[in-house]
Amino acid sequence: MASLSDIGAAATINLISAITFLIAFGILRLQPFNDRVYFPKWYLKGTRSSPTHSGGAVNKFVNLDCRTYLRFLNWMPAALRMPEPELIQHAGLDSAVYVRIYLLGLKIFVPITVLAFAVLVPVNWTNETLENINDLQFSDIDKLSISNIASGSQRFWAHVGMAYVFTFWTCYVLYHEYKRIACMRLHFLASESRRPDQFTVLVRNVPPDPDESVDQHVEHFFCVNHPDHYLTHQVVYNANSLAKLVLKKKGLQNWLNYYQNKYERNHATKPTTKTGFWGLWGKNVDAIDYYTAEIEKLSKEEAAEREKVTSDPKAIMPAAFVSFRSRWGAAVCAQTQQSSNPTLWLTEWAPEPRDVYWPNLAIPYVSITIRRLIMAVSLFFLTFFFMIPIAMVQSIANLDGIMKVLPFLKPLIEKKVIKSVIQGFLPGIALKIFLILLPTILMTMSKVEGHISLSSLDRRSAGKYHLFVLVNVFLGSIVTGTAFQQLHTFINQSATEIPKTIGVSIPMKATFFITYIMVDGWAGIAGEILRLVPLIMFHLKNTFLVKTDRDREEAMDPGSIDFASSEPRIQLYFLLGLVYAVVTPILLPFIVVFFGFSYMVFRHQIINVYSQKYESGASFWPDVHRRVIIGLIIAQLLLMGLMSTKDAAQSTPLLIALPVLTIWFHRLCKGRFEPAFVKFPLQDAMVKDTLERATEPNLNLRNYLQDAYVHPVFKDDGIDTSPAIDDEEQNLLVPTKRNSRRSTPSLSKMGSERGSDAGV
Amino acid sequence: MASLSDIGAAATINLISAITFLIAFGILRLQPFNDRVYFPKWYLKGTRSSPTHSGGAVNKFVNLDCRTYLRFLNWMPAALRMPEPELIQHAGLDSAVYVRIYLLGLKIFVPITVLAFAVLVPVNWTNETLENINDLQFSDIDKLSISNIASGSQRFWAHVGMAYVFTFWTCYVLYHEYKRIACMRLHFLASESRRPDQFTVLVRNVPPDPDESVDQHVEHFFCVNHPDHYLTHQVVYNANSLAKLVLKKKGLQNWLNYYQNKYERNHATKPTTKTGFWGLWGKNVDAIDYYTAEIEKLSKEEAAEREKVTSDPKAIMPAAFVSFRSRWGAAVCAQTQQSSNPTLWLTEWAPEPRDVYWPNLAIPYVSITIRRLIMAVSLFFLTFFFMIPIAMVQSIANLDGIMKVLPFLKPLIEKKVIKSVIQGFLPGIALKIFLILLPTILMTMSKVEGHISLSSLDRRSAGKYHLFVLVNVFLGSIVTGTAFQQLHTFINQSATEIPKTIGVSIPMKATFFITYIMVDGWAGIAGEILRLVPLIMFHLKNTFLVKTDRDREEAMDPGSIDFASSEPRIQLYFLLGLVYAVVTPILLPFIVVFFGFSYMVFRHQIINVYSQKYESGASFWPDVHRRVIIGLIIAQLLLMGLMSTKDAAQSTPLLIALPVLTIWFHRLCKGRFEPAFVKFPLQDAMVKDTLERATEPNLNLRNYLQDAYVHPVFKDDGIDTSPAIDDEEQNLLVPTKRNSRRSTPSLSKMGSERGSDAGV
Repeated sequence: MASLSDIGAAATINLISAITFLIAFGILRLQPFNDRVYFPKWYLKGTRSSPTHSGGAVNKFVNLDCRTYLRFLNWMPAALRMPEPELIQHAGLDSAVYVRIYLLGLKIFVPITVLAFAVLVPVNWTNETLENINDLQFSDIDKLSISNIASGSQRFWAHVGMAYVFTFWTCYVLYHEYKRIACMRLHFLASESRRPDQFTVLVRNVPPDPDESVDQHVEHFFCVNHPDHYLTHQVVYNANSLAKLVLKKKGLQNWLNYYQNKYERNHATKPTTKTGFWGLWGKNVDAIDYYTAEIEKLSKEEAAEREKVTSDPKAIMPAAFVSFRSRWGAAVCAQTQQSSNPTLWLTEWAPEPRDVYWPNLAIPYVSITIRRLIMAVSLFFLTFFFMIPIAMVQSIANLDGIMKVLPFLKPLIEKKVIKSVIQGFLPGIALKIFLILLPTILMTMSKVEGHISLSSLDRRSAGKYHLFVLVNVFLGSIVTGTAFQQLHTFINQSATEIPKTIGVSIPMKATFFITYIMVDGWAGIAGEILRLVPLIMFHLKNTFLVKTDRDREEAMDPGSIDFASSEPRIQLYFLLGLVYAVVTPILLPFIVVFFGFSYMVFRHQIINVYSQKYESGASFWPDVHRRVIIGLIIAQLLLMGLMSTKDAAQSTPLLIALPVLTIWFHRLCKGRFEPAFVKFPLQDAMVKDTLERATEPNLNLRNYLQDAYVHPVFKDDGIDTSPAIDDEEQNLLVPTKRNSRRSTPSLSKMGSERGSDAGV
Repeated sequence: MASLSDIGAAATINLISAITFLIAFGILRLQPFNDRVYFPKWYLKGTRSSPTHSGGAVNKFVNLDCRTYLRFLNWMPAALRMPEPELIQHAGLDSAVYVRIYLLGLKIFVPITVLAFAVLVPVNWTNETLENINDLQFSDIDKLSISNIASGSQRFWAHVGMAYVFTFWTCYVLYHEYKRIACMRLHFLASESRRPDQFTVLVRNVPPDPDESVDQHVEHFFCVNHPDHYLTHQVVYNANSLAKLVLKKKGLQNWLNYYQNKYERNHATKPTTKTGFWGLWGKNVDAIDYYTAEIEKLSKEEAAEREKVTSDPKAIMPAAFVSFRSRWGAAVCAQTQQSSNPTLWLTEWAPEPRDVYWPNLAIPYVSITIRRLIMAVSLFFLTFFFMIPIAMVQSIANLDGIMKVLPFLKPLIEKKVIKSVIQGFLPGIALKIFLILLPTILMTMSKVEGHISLSSLDRRSAGKYHLFVLVNVFLGSIVTGTAFQQLHTFINQSATEIPKTIGVSIPMKATFFITYIMVDGWAGIAGEILRLVPLIMFHLKNTFLVKTDRDREEAMDPGSIDFASSEPRIQLYFLLGLVYAVVTPILLPFIVVFFGFSYMVFRHQIINVYSQKYESGASFWPDVHRRVIIGLIIAQLLLMGLMSTKDAAQSTPLLIALPVLTIWFHRLCKGRFEPAFVKFPLQDAMVKDTLERATEPNLNLRNYLQDAYVHPVFKDDGIDTSPAIDDEEQNLLVPTKRNSRRSTPSLSKMGSERGSDAGV
């Protein structure tokens, strides 16, 4: 077991690495040529055009003003300065609420930390149980934990009492946060300007009709069943193969640009390429001619495919975006059942156009249930068999174990520095590498499940990732053995035995989790702000591909919050905090630092960097809430298990009430707030409709909605899409594929202003 | 363990008692003076007025025609003869679907029985495992069961295969039945004539408004938010105390009638009564004068209370029945969220007027969640601590056990007849007595939970009762010890150990359950048709209270299907059948006989006797379906447990797939069919609206709906309620309190026709 000084060494290492990252960030962000990496959001908004310094050519790339370096931590107060309403307007509600998850962590854990240090630490510290046991190695951390209290001691009442206080405080904070976010969401929806999705409902599983096309069938059905409200509709084309062609063409275009740039810089040799796979073998040809010809060919194919999709009735999927005259009509249609067969004419509120995940719109109902069964089974296997390598690393990370198995390593390991490094870094990093592989797999699984919006895909992936983190990171770190072995042990253990087994190991793993928090949490967040990968990618692209300003615009990758993997990781910290609050309070400050630091960093990121892919109006909050509750219940069960091994049996009935009350609290909150995240109240719809009718009596809604839900590949067609984009979006213009080619006023303006510092 | 001959004796006893009941029924139902007990439904429908025989005065009471006695089993084919559409029209969809539960039992178990006897019985019988073990007492039943197969035998593949076949067959039947009943429900709703609940939505939790009364607030809210559809509304009065007064007055009226009858028959002595509690002590007074005065006094109180309720704004509850111009408008309002606070303005499809449970209309949201928490905890304690006495009886019922403990009883018990009687009757009857006490408690608990319709109260009570039956009858009979001891054992056992423990006992308890099926099932159903309690009550009332024909009408108690306790009991038979299908197939014929016999009896009852309290359109079917699935999963888990003790470990992975597939099947069915039982599709609403508009363009809907949802006590007021009752209902007139006093045309016609056989 690691001692306090081990922890100190690990903390120092991680602090140094975090501070190094911060200093690197502080320096890099001041360099003008990195400006588009660290402040892309402002470029996208059109408010930032070139670095603030004028002067020599060098100044365009390197900041030589020494005074600015002294204030390299300036971004921190700057990140906190923007008030929340402005933040919502600037970055969207999703992002603003996302950083509130960290704030929620602070709200929960700061008072808990204070209380735990005021009450539990003295209670634990003033015992001498561990010292009285001979032959027991223990560290100072164990002295501060519940392990230091003798079995059957009356002091356990303090822990039971604190468990109640912590539970009530957590629930209190959760309730108020849920209330507040539901309120923010409703206010956000109410104050939003006109958007196509407010009037539109996605209809799926349109039944085939022998006499009518999908187009006519949809029109007739809604004309009959929503006669006063139906306005228009758009059928969904199966344009997946067309989208692939467009993507391929874009890749070839990049290569063409690369070779053209190369040729321009060095007119001596004409660049050549090989025609085989990835240009690695085959005939040598002139690269520029070759790619120009290839693009020509693809353009023809694309045109043919485009023609085919729009004319072939089989390319029309049995789904449609149906728009209504009023928000009221859309809200009604989205919330009601249309047909007596509940698997046909499925309606749901349409996601906003950029949130739609087009390939999944045509999956029939039975297929979806089968896909979900298969994915549930796969998830089970993924969760329980993916673990084997991690457990191996875990067993290595246990130094005492290594020394027993490989005694010849002893002299090496016993060197103070090496020991600390291994103990501080290794377990955390091993886990980290595994976790990086995971989100893509889980996202693919969610896509197979057939969800139709990017936001729901993100939410579902987050759910899967959370299960994985729970089983493999949390349980896997506490109980040795692979997850499958654990599963085997657990199903052969009684319901009361499982919490005991885990509960007993909890205090012993405190050190491990403290280092984990530092490596994954602190250093991870510091790495987050440095944006190393986008930094390198931008400069590579800038060097090889960029010719015009628009190219540079495309090379700039603001990225977005990766909800699917970051949210479950935050949940791990909630879980750790709640589990250790009563058991080993010394872990709490590390959690608090993590939440505080993350809050600041992510606030900076959403202000300056991230550009949202979509806006779902914080519809992920019910998931966040539920997972904190799950963490709370796990903490309560483990405490019960731990207590029952401590001969404090009289406290068990008292502790049983906690999960029951917590589950009840969850149901209360669910009934009270969740509908606000799923349904759109008619009252609010009516208010907005009435207001709009009064202010804009002559609005031509049909024109406005005409092309809102056209598949993105058709938007490149030169169709004028401006009616589909509202005023707010005009400023936010996201450089996704579909609108990057349009030269909108704001983009061209930015281009001309930045003309001075173009080219490398 | 009981042998085949014990079972034979028990079967004989039960068959004799069942046949006795049937003969008694056959004789009693032919007596004209019992006609109102055995055919009340026809009286209520107005199609039956007096016994079919004419003749002397004796003929009015006793049937002397011997030929009719020879055909005493005639009712059986008669019960089966009525085709289903007619049955639905005659008895309502609820009743028609209720008897289909028995039909479902037949559909599932007849083929399973055939298969099991063709495959499993030979496989089991041709082993000699039990005979090869020395010192083991076994019966012929055990020889037919899975116990007769040696551990690790290859013959277990037959059982695994059959488990798959039975599961698929059950799911197949369940799917088709669900589909058919969903279809019947939609057809029923579509073909229903106009009813107030089609246009009406129940709104609860109307928020208080400082400036407006509830009445105005509701009107304004719906005028604004459903401007094109809102028609009218009725507020809900808190008339619970008034209802109590009315009930009390009715009781006094009964006493007055009793004494008046007594006096008429014997003019010599004026009847007296005592003024104290229940007439047991106090001053002696003239009974007729006393009750007349009391009724006078109560009438005044009632008038005052009535005045108070209608004028006091505090008597108006924050709930209202809101009616719409069209079914479409009502369907929309019922399915959508109205306000941004989802705990206010809660809307749901209104139950039909006679289905409303008035006292629960005013419970606020938070109170409901607290009540449900308390009731859930109470249910847990009720389920697990109610068991102690039953377990005592169970241990007595084990004769071999008694003989060991009380050897002096041996000579008595060893007498063949006594042994069979004890083993055949005792365990079943002890359980039965306990179960009779239960439904009332569970119904009270459901009422506390705050459900607002009688049908949902019934459904919720059935759910509680099902849990109770599962834990206490099924598990309690298999595993010895009180339920609490079991619970204690189970939470201290591993997840794999629990099915093993129970699974191993399963084959040994086959005999017990066979006798249980005979006592509770066969004899119980035969008792059901005899209607002993209503028979006695009717004749008592007829003798002492009846003066006029209307009194006799009231004395007639047709009763109704007690869904809350009968449905879970049927589920026990499903469970037993599914559990024993693979293990001890000999039990299956008993189940099949039970289902067949019950089907016939209940079809007879709903045709001739029962009068529904309400019509919910078979909305209980999802519960029935879910519980059969639960039974199926329990059967699969127990089989897995049993197999794993038989060294047939290679079959376990195969068996694990079964519950996974079954749960998936349940989810598929739930998504596919359940909405049809919860929501009302807009398409169907629109079709009915359009049709009605075409056929009755001048309908005054406002008048029609004006008083549909007035509290029953106000309906006695002489308000003309006919617009609220549709044509179909006019014929069905149910003699509940609220309309029993109205002299409707059909009732008075019946009265005059039956004038000849009035009075005793």
